[in-house]
Amino acid sequence: MANDAEPVESEARVRSSFAKQGLMATLGATLETVSPGVVEIAIRPRPAISQQHGFVHAGAVTAIADSAAGYAALSLMPPGTGVLSTEFKINLLAPASGDRIVARGRVVKAGRTLTVAQSEVFAEVAGQEKLIALLTATLMTIAARGGISD
Amino acid sequence: MANDAEPVESEARVRSSFAKQGLMATLGATLETVSPGVVEIAIRPRPAISQQHGFVHAGAVTAIADSAAGYAALSLMPPGTGVLSTEFKINLLAPASGDRIVARGRVVKAGRTLTVAQSEVFAEVAGQEKLIALLTATLMTIAARGGISD
Amino acid sequence: MANDAEPVESEARVRSSFAKQGLMATLGATLETVSPGVVEIAIRPRPAISQQHGFVHAGAVTAIADSAAGYAALSLMPPGTGVLSTEFKINLLAPASGDRIVARGRVVKAGRTLTVAQSEVFAEVAGQEKLIALLTATLMTIAARGGISD
Amino acid sequence: MANDAEPVESEARVRSSFAKQGLMATLGATLETVSPGVVEIAIRPRPAISQQHGFVHAGAVTAIADSAAGYAALSLMPPGTGVLSTEFKINLLAPASGDRIVARGRVVKAGRTLTVAQSEVFAEVAGQEKLIALLTATLMTIAARGGISD
Repeated sequence: MANDAEPVESEARVRSSFAKQGLMATLGATLETVSPGVVEIAIRPRPAISQQHGFVHAGAVTAIADSAAGYAALSLMPPGTGVLSTEFKINLLAPASGDRIVARGRVVKAGRTLTVAQSEVFAEVAGQEKLIALLTATLMTIAARGGISD
Repeated sequence: MANDAEPVESEARVRSSFAKQGLMATLGATLETVSPGVVEIAIRPRPAISQQHGFVHAGAVTAIADSAAGYAALSLMPPGTGVLSTEFKINLLAPASGDRIVARGRVVKAGRTLTVAQSEVFAEVAGQEKLIALLTATLMTIAARGGISD
Repeated sequence: MANDAEPVESEARVRSSFAKQGLMATLGATLETVSPGVVEIAIRPRPAISQQHGFVHAGAVTAIADSAAGYAALSLMPPGTGVLSTEFKINLLAPASGDRIVARGRVVKAGRTLTVAQSEVFAEVAGQEKLIALLTATLMTIAARGGISD
Repeated sequence: MANDAEPVESEARVRSSFAKQGLMATLGATLETVSPGVVEIAIRPRPAISQQHGFVHAGAVTAIADSAAGYAALSLMPPGTGVLSTEFKINLLAPASGDRIVARGRVVKAGRTLTVAQSEVFAEVAGQEKLIALLTATLMTIAARGGISD
C-alpha cells in the first residue's frame, strides 16, 4: 500500500536528516510533529542560546524556523532529492521567552524547483501560545548526489 | 576630547554586549573588527554548527550576520540606548564551508527610530574570500530600561 | 456609541486616503472590502500594467499588495495618525493573469510604533481563486503633521 | 568578434524586453544605462504615480527597482533564456521625491538557475543623489518557449 506508506517514509527521511544537523543538537532543539507539509521544531530558552538581554537570540529562533520550513518542504519532495534554503525573511514580533519556543513550518506553494514555506514561531507561556515571529522561505529541490541529500 | 573618545566608548559597548550573548559563545563566534558603523563576527565550521550535508547551518550563518548588522547599528546609536532586530532577510548564495566564515555588518541608513544595516558573509578558503550570503536588517533603537540596554 | 462608530470612521479614513493615491487610479485599482484589520484591493489584467510576457507586472502586484497591507494596518491605528511602509518582502508564486487580481491584506501584529501585516494575492480565473503572491510588510505609525496623515 | 558583440546583443535584448513592459510606459519609466550586470531605470515624480502624501508610491519605486534588478540579471543570462522574479525585499529608507528617481540594479551572484541582484534607488535633488530604497531580488532563468522569453 504505497500511498499509506509514503507519509511514514517522508517522516523517516525528515527525522533522519534532522538527526544529522549538528546545530539542532547544539541548540537543544527537538523535532516534534512531522506530517506531509507541516513540521514543528521546539527549543527551551536557556542562557546558552540567549542574546544580550536574556531573551532567546534571533539567530536561534531563525535557525529552528528555517529548519521547520525546510523540512516541511522536504516532506513533500520526491524520494532521492534534498532541500536547500535559498533565502528567507523573518519578522520578529515580540521577545522570545517563555517555557518553550515552537516553530511551525508549513508549505505555502510546492513547486518542482522552488517551494515557498512559512514558519510561525510561538512562545508558550503557562500553556498559552503567543506568536513571536513569522518567517517566509524559498527552498530549492536538489538532486541527491555526492552525499548532498535530504 | 570627547570626539576621540566616542569610538572607544562605542567599541566597549559593543564588546560588552557581545560578551552577554550566550548564543555567540555556544556557536564559537568571535567578535573581530568593531568600528563606527562596521562590525565583523566570525565562526569556524565544525560539526556542532552544521546542517545535514556538513555545511555550516543557515541558522548559524544568520545568527552571526544578524549580530554583525545589529552591532554595526548599535555602534552609531546614542549612549544609553539598546538595539533590537525587528526583521531581516538573507539570501544564501553558496554553501557555507571553508576555514572561517566572516560576517561583515555595515550601516546603510541610520535613523532615530529605525536603522537599516547589511551584512555580507564571506567564506575564507586558502586566504581567499568568497561571498556566500547577504543579509539586510531593520534595527530599532530602544531606550535602556529595566536591564534592556545595549 | 463610540465603539460602533469607530469601524465606520476607520473605513472612511482608508477610503479617503486611497482616493489620494494617484498610482492606484493609474493602475485601475479598486478598493474593495475595508474592515478593521483587513483590506482588499483589486486590479484587472490589461496591457497597461503588464510585464514583457503579458502577465501583470510584479510591480503592479506589489503595489496593490503593499497598499492592502498598509491600509489594513491603518484601519487599526488611532485617529490622527498616518501609515508608512518601512519594508516589505514578496514571494511571487505564479504568473499574475486571469479575470481579476485581488490583494487581501490583514494585520499580523499591531504595535504602537510598528505593525506587521501580510497580503495574500489571488488570481481569479472562472470564479476560482489561486494564490499567486505573498507579501509581508512592516508599517510604521506616524504622527499626522504638515499634511502627512492617513 | 563574438565577444565584442555580446554586450551589444545583451543590451538590445534588455531594451527590446523593456519596450514590451506596459507598466513601465504607464509609469513613465525610462531605461537608462544598460551594461553587463548593471541596469538603470528612472521615473519622474508626478501625481499619477503618487501615494496619499504626494510622494512617489512605494509600488512605483519597487516596480522600477524590480525591473532594474531583473534586467541586470537578464543582461548576464545566455541567449534564448528569459528572466522571472521569484521574490524580492525592499527597505524604504526615505520618502521618494525630488527631480528624478533612479533605480540602479546590479548582479550580486549569477547562477545557472537562480541569480541574486540588488537595486539601490536614489532620489536626485538639485544634482545630488540620496539613497531612498534598497531592494534584493532572486531572479530565475527560464527557458524561452511559447513566447516566454526575455
